[in-house]
Amino acid sequence: MTLGAIRLFVTGGTFDKGYNELTGELFFQDTHLQEMLRLGRCLLDVEIRELMMVDSLEMTEDDRRIIVEHCERAPESRIVITHGTDTMVETAAHIGRRVQGKTIVLTGAMVPYKFGSSDGLFNLGSALAFVQTLAPGVYIGMNGRCFPWVRVRKNQAKGVFEAL
Amino acid sequence: MTLGAIRLFVTGGTFDKGYNELTGELFFQDTHLQEMLRLGRCLLDVEIRELMMVDSLEMTEDDRRIIVEHCERAPESRIVITHGTDTMVETAAHIGRRVQGKTIVLTGAMVPYKFGSSDGLFNLGSALAFVQTLAPGVYIGMNGRCFPWVRVRKNQAKGVFEAL
Amino acid sequence: MTLGAIRLFVTGGTFDKGYNELTGELFFQDTHLQEMLRLGRCLLDVEIRELMMVDSLEMTEDDRRIIVEHCERAPESRIVITHGTDTMVETAAHIGRRVQGKTIVLTGAMVPYKFGSSDGLFNLGSALAFVQTLAPGVYIGMNGRCFPWVRVRKNQAKGVFEAL
Amino acid sequence: MTLGAIRLFVTGGTFDKGYNELTGELFFQDTHLQEMLRLGRCLLDVEIRELMMVDSLEMTEDDRRIIVEHCERAPESRIVITHGTDTMVETAAHIGRRVQGKTIVLTGAMVPYKFGSSDGLFNLGSALAFVQTLAPGVYIGMNGRCFPWVRVRKNQAKGVFEAL
Repeated sequence: MTLGAIRLFVTGGTFDKGYNELTGELFFQDTHLQEMLRLGRCLLDVEIRELMMVDSLEMTEDDRRIIVEHCERAPESRIVITHGTDTMVETAAHIGRRVQGKTIVLTGAMVPYKFGSSDGLFNLGSALAFVQTLAPGVYIGMNGRCFPWVRVRKNQAKGVFEAL
Repeated sequence: MTLGAIRLFVTGGTFDKGYNELTGELFFQDTHLQEMLRLGRCLLDVEIRELMMVDSLEMTEDDRRIIVEHCERAPESRIVITHGTDTMVETAAHIGRRVQGKTIVLTGAMVPYKFGSSDGLFNLGSALAFVQTLAPGVYIGMNGRCFPWVRVRKNQAKGVFEAL
Repeated sequence: MTLGAIRLFVTGGTFDKGYNELTGELFFQDTHLQEMLRLGRCLLDVEIRELMMVDSLEMTEDDRRIIVEHCERAPESRIVITHGTDTMVETAAHIGRRVQGKTIVLTGAMVPYKFGSSDGLFNLGSALAFVQTLAPGVYIGMNGRCFPWVRVRKNQAKGVFEAL
Repeated sequence: MTLGAIRLFVTGGTFDKGYNELTGELFFQDTHLQEMLRLGRCLLDVEIRELMMVDSLEMTEDDRRIIVEHCERAPESRIVITHGTDTMVETAAHIGRRVQGKTIVLTGAMVPYKFGSSDGLFNLGSALAFVQTLAPGVYIGMNGRCFPWVRVRKNQAKGVFEAL
């Protein structure tokens, strides 16, 4: 597969939460995506761009408009988006209704990467694989699975994504 | 995608090496694959079977015959195999020449999972994604990339897999 | 040194904070002290007792009374207390004014143990060493250093303990 | 306690073993002691000096002579030495017979620091505490305990240190 570059848009979410030693609170600092790709010895041509750094519960319509516009304008036809899980389905729907002809996979993590027990590296690995192999469309890639945006919801009680 | 179960054959390799405190040597104990799937919050229906636990440099023709037979006999049509990287290409070729009609992805790690800085979780995530989405055939999934078995070699000097 | 058992009182604090995957918040579940002693291959005779599991900013006078009483009544003359750092000095003062003839070391962590980058294991190792070697009195053991309770304050801006 | 600087001599041992991705073997590269002190948020004035980087089973009489000389010549009266566990007792005896008037604590690890499950940080924390509080003499600080060099042996079968 020679696919050209993959675009990786960072929007925040649990993935990138860190721990503030002085306040004892979780916060966003810089993205850990470069470090994660290095850890995975990833040899794909991935272009990272940080669009925002927010908790997905606080993501606004403006934020979603920015994400959609970047998906439309990106020269790459394969895009991975890291995103908080709480409103991932909603953002996927925004993109799915507007962006055509590109394979776009949203992924995230239930536990911050910086915690020892994060699922982030697993999800990133699978999202980058899905984005190379799936037909154009907008998907959510979590828990080893991949769902088209029109057929997925988050089960908030269990913290997992399910097929509709 | 409703795909039915994925078979995961464990053969050893760096993935599963542990550290023996008493001798200071690396060794194989039990596989960490269950733990890794749990860490990745993997919700796929994965059936793990440990076929052997060897360093791939010490894998014999008998070992490869056993792997091929298990691939042929497995009821699942989607199979991931964890394998040492040194002779992963050779085992892929053995399978590729004999097994038809199944999607089989070999994967591994450059650093043992039990070390903090392992690429194993990333590779496992991508292998499980590739095996769900690729057409029947035998592939090597490493470093975020996926190669058909006839078009890949390991660059021993760099420790990475490259297209032929 | 044959010292008999060391008592370890757990009161919560950053040491034992975990991450709730469903809410994205930090919380207290069970103590990680047993796991940490196992990780440190600790061979001391340590008796762990969980007194409470609170953020030290929310520790009440009742909580401090309970801690003091347990220090007084414990048959052991050497006691380590894990405690949130924010009010560690205050609790040390409560104990210091009331408990005589015992060596008591309060310790904590700036980063939860479950995060990859915690200082907890280092602090626990040093607290257990200080408690074996120091004369009776109440001390704070943090950052590799040990301070008598009457001569220490927390520098909140820097997140470290300093001599008065 | 205002003690002036503590000298930290690095000699190698399990503490500092890394994993060579290309060969799959354990090896010595650079010491991780600075990183460990940073992780422990250590605020002691510690001067690190790497004397050698060897497996303690391969330590020669010349190596031990070098260690003894550095202990004698160091301006600091408090010295921690990181050392492989297999011959730690032997090196402690060499130092104990020759160096007077200094508190010297040898410590090590059963599992390399770079592995997730290392006891190294715990042992380093306790060694730095013991060296500040014990009377002049040569000690082995492992497993939370501290032994004068004349009263300790390594139980090779269990991988722990015991009082003679």
